[in-house]
Amino acid sequence: MREFKKLTPYKEAFNLMINDIEETKEVEEVSLDEALGRVLAEDIISPIDSPPFDRSAVDGYAVRAEDTFQAREYNPIELEVIDEITAGMESKKEVGKGKAIKLMTGNKIPKGANAVIMQEHVKREGNRIYVLRPVAPGQNVSFKGEDIKKGEVLLRKRQILRAQDLALLKSVGIKRIKVKRKPKVGIIVTGDELIEDLDEKALNEGKILESNSIMLKSLVRQYFGEPIFYGVLPDDEAKINEALEKTKKECDLVLITGGSAFGDKDYAHKFVRLLFHGTTIRPGRPMGYGEKIFVMSGYPVAVFTQFHLFVKYALIKLAGADYKDIKVKARLASKVSSTLGRYEFVKVWYEDGKAKPIRKSGSGLISSLVESNGYLIIPEDVEGYREGEEVEIVLY
Amino acid sequence: MREFKKLTPYKEAFNLMINDIEETKEVEEVSLDEALGRVLAEDIISPIDSPPFDRSAVDGYAVRAEDTFQAREYNPIELEVIDEITAGMESKKEVGKGKAIKLMTGNKIPKGANAVIMQEHVKREGNRIYVLRPVAPGQNVSFKGEDIKKGEVLLRKRQILRAQDLALLKSVGIKRIKVKRKPKVGIIVTGDELIEDLDEKALNEGKILESNSIMLKSLVRQYFGEPIFYGVLPDDEAKINEALEKTKKECDLVLITGGSAFGDKDYAHKFVRLLFHGTTIRPGRPMGYGEKIFVMSGYPVAVFTQFHLFVKYALIKLAGADYKDIKVKARLASKVSSTLGRYEFVKVWYEDGKAKPIRKSGSGLISSLVESNGYLIIPEDVEGYREGEEVEIVLY
Repeated sequence: MREFKKLTPYKEAFNLMINDIEETKEVEEVSLDEALGRVLAEDIISPIDSPPFDRSAVDGYAVRAEDTFQAREYNPIELEVIDEITAGMESKKEVGKGKAIKLMTGNKIPKGANAVIMQEHVKREGNRIYVLRPVAPGQNVSFKGEDIKKGEVLLRKRQILRAQDLALLKSVGIKRIKVKRKPKVGIIVTGDELIEDLDEKALNEGKILESNSIMLKSLVRQYFGEPIFYGVLPDDEAKINEALEKTKKECDLVLITGGSAFGDKDYAHKFVRLLFHGTTIRPGRPMGYGEKIFVMSGYPVAVFTQFHLFVKYALIKLAGADYKDIKVKARLASKVSSTLGRYEFVKVWYEDGKAKPIRKSGSGLISSLVESNGYLIIPEDVEGYREGEEVEIVLY
Repeated sequence: MREFKKLTPYKEAFNLMINDIEETKEVEEVSLDEALGRVLAEDIISPIDSPPFDRSAVDGYAVRAEDTFQAREYNPIELEVIDEITAGMESKKEVGKGKAIKLMTGNKIPKGANAVIMQEHVKREGNRIYVLRPVAPGQNVSFKGEDIKKGEVLLRKRQILRAQDLALLKSVGIKRIKVKRKPKVGIIVTGDELIEDLDEKALNEGKILESNSIMLKSLVRQYFGEPIFYGVLPDDEAKINEALEKTKKECDLVLITGGSAFGDKDYAHKFVRLLFHGTTIRPGRPMGYGEKIFVMSGYPVAVFTQFHLFVKYALIKLAGADYKDIKVKARLASKVSSTLGRYEFVKVWYEDGKAKPIRKSGSGLISSLVESNGYLIIPEDVEGYREGEEVEIVLY
């Protein structure tokens, strides 16, 4: 087994990788019901003004503001209520001097009126109201186009669609939209030692239950991709080469685990023109990337780390998603240390402004991932952080 | 229109509601591929020890620790390499005095050996190694059951399943699990003023494009539920009553929008035995709950607020999900104010430790929701917060 001659610093490796990834140009049209969590592929222009007309922002009475200027608690102004309308209705009458029309939030301001007085600010007696305070012209009126102007950009290309975004689209009459096609991500798992089904005898002989496929499929789903699993292969040069060729043709991105190091059986890197091989991240050092293929470790914790530090961002760029990590500041519940020259991925449990480092080590220990909900980074030139120090956590 | 006699304080209204909701007992069995984001319905007990045997935690040489005690850079100890094994393999040989076996991370510790020396800490020459530093007994060995003990609880009931949780299950040979059935949430939208398709003439006459259905369907999906849409109904007492009866029978929870206030056309509350009607939240005050039915506003921003302050937590409890809000501390980019007695829901854009309040008001303005990614609360007894003050943000 040969060692890495040189580890590419994380930032450099990341840049080599990310600059090689291109945003997908392919789009598909979906209904709003299918659009939650998808990536918008077009700017959305409003086809209408909203409100489409000047309308009341409150429940109350449409009036001529000038009729109310003298109104005070001790000097109520009497107006005659000449009409009452309910939601979605429109009064055909005109508000003349000394008149008022009762209306609800959202109703069109009737002709002649230029303000609305809230119902809490009048006393009603039969078809009369007594106005207890003045309103200014325009008060409690939502003007045409005030929320949204016809022709205005409502949502930008690359936005990840949430419930409120879909509601906005529906509220201007848009029912189908173009979204980015989900990147197809081929997953190949390799290793003579892997088994799929529980078999205590095999485990005692050194076999290992394969778990990278479900982890990567789930992470790909979470970050805008469509996983396609190409199965578990033995450490067979010809079979691995064949699977890589097929997967490259059929997918936008390929993740292959196992065989990323330089062991005699680590074939994967031989078939890929790598832009880098070996980086300063820990765990996950023996990783390579080239030709849209991530050559990843076999150990689940290393794979998880490589995904979060590299693959995730490739998927975000490929999918064209305007995604930002959720970063929070936290106080460290205990000190963490690292080795100079390593870009250390420290799993933490974040809660209520505190981050507790998960101390379990060993890149095979999936339970350390299960106990964490985020991570912090100790960069190459830092040896660690003290207990109580403020650090930045990225939440998974 | 009659006003609310008394607004139930938010916390009191919330408790009335949440105490009325019961966790679903129904479960379904799914494969790991279908389980991402689902709620686990059983404690998961490990059927195996992991590691299943004492194994190497590093790539290196299995040795008798006592043979290395005198090893130093200036006093290398020579050992004979009697075997070499690769991943998943097991050496049948025994490590005697002065001997070593080359192995890889995860390999079983051969008989006779009690420690592993990392390959970086030896010099190799042919079938000899020169050990440059001592190792202690047990060093670089992962002991049987160190990560997971047979019979140990791996994942707890109510956990929301993530990629790493599924990998953990697969790594101990579990391929199918019981999850909670998704709560069925019936959605009814009411209002004579609502239209489904863009029609400028109708809009100019005061009609409104309905957007609550897609918003609620999406939010229900996001928070563990299965939405079932019962359509848009006119303000017709008989039809609303009929739809409510049907939906109550078929669903675990019902959301009905429009008609929550006391207007002549606000029927919904008449058919529901409400535990409260009218609460201190703003926006969204005219809301009621009873008989697993949320009687909600018609205005989208009010509906969104009512969902986030009430319905979301009903869904979490119903689904039996161990879900915690993502809360972050942030400095306010500008002051926010409220009225005493109101539990104000202030939409904000959170980024890099700063929260920018979204100033648009009006419960119809969906664009204010689109511009936000979280909210802060101004409780009933607080008038507001100053610019620069530290506040707590709940991220959507």
